Amino acid sequence: MNFNIHRDVLLENLLIAQKALSTKTPAPYLQGIKLEVYEKEVVMVTSNADISIKISIKDESLDVKEEGNVLIPGRFFVDIVRKLDGDTVSFSMFENNMLKLVSKNSDVTLNLLDIDDYPEIDFVVNEHPIPIETKVMKAIIRQTTFATSTIENRPILTGVNIRVDKENLVATATDSFRLSQKIIDIPKNFDEMNVVIPGKSLDELIKIFEEDLEEILIHLNHQSILFEYGNVLFQSRLLEGNFPETSRLVPKEFPIVIKFDRTTLMTAVDRAALLSQRDSSTSIVKLELKDNDVVEITSTSPEIGKVVEEVHPSEKPEGSPIKIAFSSKYFLEALHTFSADEVMVKFTGEVRPFVIESEKDKDLTELILPVRTE
Amino acid sequence: MNFNIHRDVLLENLLIAQKALSTKTPAPYLQGIKLEVYEKEVVMVTSNADISIKISIKDESLDVKEEGNVLIPGRFFVDIVRKLDGDTVSFSMFENNMLKLVSKNSDVTLNLLDIDDYPEIDFVVNEHPIPIETKVMKAIIRQTTFATSTIENRPILTGVNIRVDKENLVATATDSFRLSQKIIDIPKNFDEMNVVIPGKSLDELIKIFEEDLEEILIHLNHQSILFEYGNVLFQSRLLEGNFPETSRLVPKEFPIVIKFDRTTLMTAVDRAALLSQRDSSTSIVKLELKDNDVVEITSTSPEIGKVVEEVHPSEKPEGSPIKIAFSSKYFLEALHTFSADEVMVKFTGEVRPFVIESEKDKDLTELILPVRTE
Repeated sequence: MNFNIHRDVLLENLLIAQKALSTKTPAPYLQGIKLEVYEKEVVMVTSNADISIKISIKDESLDVKEEGNVLIPGRFFVDIVRKLDGDTVSFSMFENNMLKLVSKNSDVTLNLLDIDDYPEIDFVVNEHPIPIETKVMKAIIRQTTFATSTIENRPILTGVNIRVDKENLVATATDSFRLSQKIIDIPKNFDEMNVVIPGKSLDELIKIFEEDLEEILIHLNHQSILFEYGNVLFQSRLLEGNFPETSRLVPKEFPIVIKFDRTTLMTAVDRAALLSQRDSSTSIVKLELKDNDVVEITSTSPEIGKVVEEVHPSEKPEGSPIKIAFSSKYFLEALHTFSADEVMVKFTGEVRPFVIESEKDKDLTELILPVRTE
Repeated sequence: MNFNIHRDVLLENLLIAQKALSTKTPAPYLQGIKLEVYEKEVVMVTSNADISIKISIKDESLDVKEEGNVLIPGRFFVDIVRKLDGDTVSFSMFENNMLKLVSKNSDVTLNLLDIDDYPEIDFVVNEHPIPIETKVMKAIIRQTTFATSTIENRPILTGVNIRVDKENLVATATDSFRLSQKIIDIPKNFDEMNVVIPGKSLDELIKIFEEDLEEILIHLNHQSILFEYGNVLFQSRLLEGNFPETSRLVPKEFPIVIKFDRTTLMTAVDRAALLSQRDSSTSIVKLELKDNDVVEITSTSPEIGKVVEEVHPSEKPEGSPIKIAFSSKYFLEALHTFSADEVMVKFTGEVRPFVIESEKDKDLTELILPVRTE
């Protein structure tokens, strides 16, 4: 193996490939980056327990003198290329299991990993992938993964449920205390699908959306999901098990609807949360719609004191006075997913789940379960 | 106690005062911020085991209706004022031990700490303090505290030695493996002094230099050092014990002198360090001046591989070839303290301390002890 490549091109692709590097693994070969060097292409492969990445590099700076495959210690490879300051990096092999990287005045020798240990990874590409705008895919991830469960006692809740039916793609996440759901239109005629993707995989996926490619292609099958983004294939395992049926969780009738300026509401809850966070990990605030149509958000800590925030709804509220208590963290995270200036908080009763929606972000529903106090 | 003050003025001063807040302390009153409210002035006092801060606020926004002293839970006070979005904050007392803060739509009640527990703190101000330009004081701190010891077995080495003699102020720090020394001119006729200031105190002091006040006044006595910066008094305890005599540590003769472009040298060592850091906490690199006047910086890890960096001195080196090994961390930190583009690395021999200097930063000497290898 012997080739030259532009350092910036190499680094840019390494920074994507490293997202699937294992850091702690009983299999040291998964700490490696596999390079397959062909006449006019270098293919990078990385893989860990959750995701696998395959990148095809066909840059004009690529100058291959000898083909070959190698498995390079990943973390150090990325770190050294990041610090190299030459324009070009030259790769060559010597003594069979050593790699030489030369760039400007740097001469780096690396002990290679045994490529025979590396598993064959099957990147499953469909004939008719689902096209989605990159910015929509970004929104799906940003608006769902935060609501997945971080505790492992119900593993299926650590994932985001993706359901494809005739005209929609429905993304749902819930940790059983709150739920976030986004429904987007897709072209017709895709097979119906119902899978659960690890939330962590999606958190890595969103990081590779750096170039401004308009579209991402989703290749979905029953074993895995593969996102094709330009020259990058990003494949994730799926979670096994049944995602809970969430449609009956959302109340149908909302006798109480309060419209808020989103930023005003967030800063008020943020201040109240400051106090409740000090006192307990649950961080409960109370919201009260009063007779005079003013909303009071309060939190109390016997040790420190009390915060009372007065918030004026942006329109006269519908419905009767209500007093309800909930996690400030869940409420803030839900409000954070909206882009709209104005949101509607819709209540059914003091012990029933409530919902946040907005006229601008019509495809998004945030639901939160209240807590009982006193 | 009852007064109003502009929120931004309050916050700006709180952010300084909080530097001396105790976070973990057996004395809960040291987690408090003391406010002394006078007719035309509010005084803030905070104190922990190392430093005490006293700030006088005489802002035109200050409107005192009733004088008084209170001790407010510090961390929460700072956090809530940071998040308040009203222009003005109103303070009032009720029920004897509760404080009410009102700002725009926020109404915050805080349980006060018992002010009778708070110790009387003596801020010792001299008649003739030493004036130092703020930017020089900043440089002293930036160029010395990094070289103090972080381990506590010789407590005196966790401090920076400040010696005042007839015309100079000499600041010295050493962890016994390296030494950093800065000598600055001061006006004559100050008493000779020789004290050791905890490095951590200086690290906090540098953070309060945010406004662009040109001068800082140093009030030095045998028990404490007090820095007067505008309306802020920042007092630190001194370390007890004798700071080691360091003057004999610095070699007098340097038969080998190599000039480098500082940035080129740093990036080369940085790359070599990357590999040595992986392998051990000591992170040793080797520097070799070769017959052909080229310098090679190398590091080797049996596990990962080898990095060889070729560096061309900016002038033909003086002296014979040499091969010397040292901590890349100490070398990089020392190089980092210079502002000059060009530095001189001066060697006496392979097992003797070596020195880094620059013609531009004449007042600064960095010394590093090499390590023996092989």
